[in-house]
Amino acid sequence: MSALFQTFLEEARQLVDKKLPEYVRELEAEHRLKEAMLYSLEAGGKRVRPVLLLAVLEAYNQPILHGLDTACAIEMVHTYSLVHDDLPAMDDDDLRRGQPTNHKVFGEATAILAGDALLTQSFALIANADAPLSAKTKVSIIAALSKAAGASGMVGGQLADMFAEGKQLTVEQLANVHKRKTGELLAFSIEAGALIAGVSNEERSKLNEFGQEIGLLFQIKDDILDVEGDSIAIGKPVGSDAVNNKSTYPGLLGLDGAKTMLHTHYDRALQVLDELHLRGTLLEDLAKYIVTRDH
Amino acid sequence: MSALFQTFLEEARQLVDKKLPEYVRELEAEHRLKEAMLYSLEAGGKRVRPVLLLAVLEAYNQPILHGLDTACAIEMVHTYSLVHDDLPAMDDDDLRRGQPTNHKVFGEATAILAGDALLTQSFALIANADAPLSAKTKVSIIAALSKAAGASGMVGGQLADMFAEGKQLTVEQLANVHKRKTGELLAFSIEAGALIAGVSNEERSKLNEFGQEIGLLFQIKDDILDVEGDSIAIGKPVGSDAVNNKSTYPGLLGLDGAKTMLHTHYDRALQVLDELHLRGTLLEDLAKYIVTRDH
Repeated sequence: MSALFQTFLEEARQLVDKKLPEYVRELEAEHRLKEAMLYSLEAGGKRVRPVLLLAVLEAYNQPILHGLDTACAIEMVHTYSLVHDDLPAMDDDDLRRGQPTNHKVFGEATAILAGDALLTQSFALIANADAPLSAKTKVSIIAALSKAAGASGMVGGQLADMFAEGKQLTVEQLANVHKRKTGELLAFSIEAGALIAGVSNEERSKLNEFGQEIGLLFQIKDDILDVEGDSIAIGKPVGSDAVNNKSTYPGLLGLDGAKTMLHTHYDRALQVLDELHLRGTLLEDLAKYIVTRDH
Repeated sequence: MSALFQTFLEEARQLVDKKLPEYVRELEAEHRLKEAMLYSLEAGGKRVRPVLLLAVLEAYNQPILHGLDTACAIEMVHTYSLVHDDLPAMDDDDLRRGQPTNHKVFGEATAILAGDALLTQSFALIANADAPLSAKTKVSIIAALSKAAGASGMVGGQLADMFAEGKQLTVEQLANVHKRKTGELLAFSIEAGALIAGVSNEERSKLNEFGQEIGLLFQIKDDILDVEGDSIAIGKPVGSDAVNNKSTYPGLLGLDGAKTMLHTHYDRALQVLDELHLRGTLLEDLAKYIVTRDH
């Protein structure tokens, strides 16, 4: 990891880590509800989505503070999805990143409501953003976020993923489920950065392609880590996908096949950056980071 | 009910009933998820919130079609809240308006996701509204909706309501819980109408006061209907609040005391309309309708 990228990553994470809980603390709401929201927001996420958005601004020489509200909004949406996905009626997970899941600590009812509140609050963050975003930009961001996070994106992807358990999917079907479950929100992080940076339509469309590749890379790498990662680093038992009968890239293609696919899409991501004249920027470092991370 | 109001009510409901499912049908998403969303959207609600919004436009001689997207968005938010509130971990209700609740038909996981998708979609409706709403108006509507529906409004109110079960509340505490659980979204319906109609800040603040009174009237009347309503008309057993150990206005004030409170706030609502020079408009009919309805 280059020193510059390391510094950016730390700075961006610190900004998000500091700002994110403030949006919750300032709410006039039950202590219990706020605690449940904060518990999952502060559970040590890697902040990949906010970092992606801020990296787009940095790559286009825009102040990253202009994207901080929106970056935090994305992290809230991501966090709400984890809280709901972990519920007994859904994936029924007791641990997340090595810690008890939200409903294990606060009970199911509060976990459902904390998720609802995080999702609702994310739209407030964008609407009330005091960065110099025009109303038009805010509306575009909200339209794109609700699409990426809703029935045709993340929520639908979670449903498809749940009902696919125990079924043998093709690689195309698996890619489609993941595109919606995790890819769309990752791609939206890039898109939001593009909207805030005010890039041309042509660049936005290319950046969107880069975002789609990043989403795919993220998932293939996650599946590979589930096979050969360190259980402490990844915060869950190695091999849990196989135990849960989940279709994965290594399961369908073999470990070597999944790694080949990872590198094919990594090359494609770099090629898109080339076309955008953004090779050598933080976006390249980020793509590399996603592909080489150990958790 | 005046013939004019009757006609308006029917027309407004028909517009909403026709438009609401279209936003779901056009989504590229799992059939099962869309069916679950449609099931609760089409479960025969009274469309009170959309009607309130459209009545504000009518009272200010604005085309009601300008508010249709936002009106449908509010109904989606209301519907998602019912789906989540009915869940086993929350109020654990098997019936809603005399029909099996969403999770009874589709299972808990799908019900949770259908609720999440409805909430997310509501923001898409406003952001993508093709009525001649400016981006600035859309942002104001989204900011107000996320406040009314979030931790400091509806979601927090539901948590407070759940944890108040079995406890003896004061009238003030009860009013505060209901203000958040149901009042804020009803008041938002009026506020959204004011934002779309583009009324002055002074009028908006008065309309907001009217909205708060409407929210209160709605809840007091609901509690009264639970004691003396017709179980078929209200779609649940009469007396279920008492069985569930819920604090209610009749429980705290007696039935006569609750009726006196209803009429005091009805008078106050009419006084606010007087100050707005909106006596004799549909808003007066609506207030009267809320107070005299039998379900």
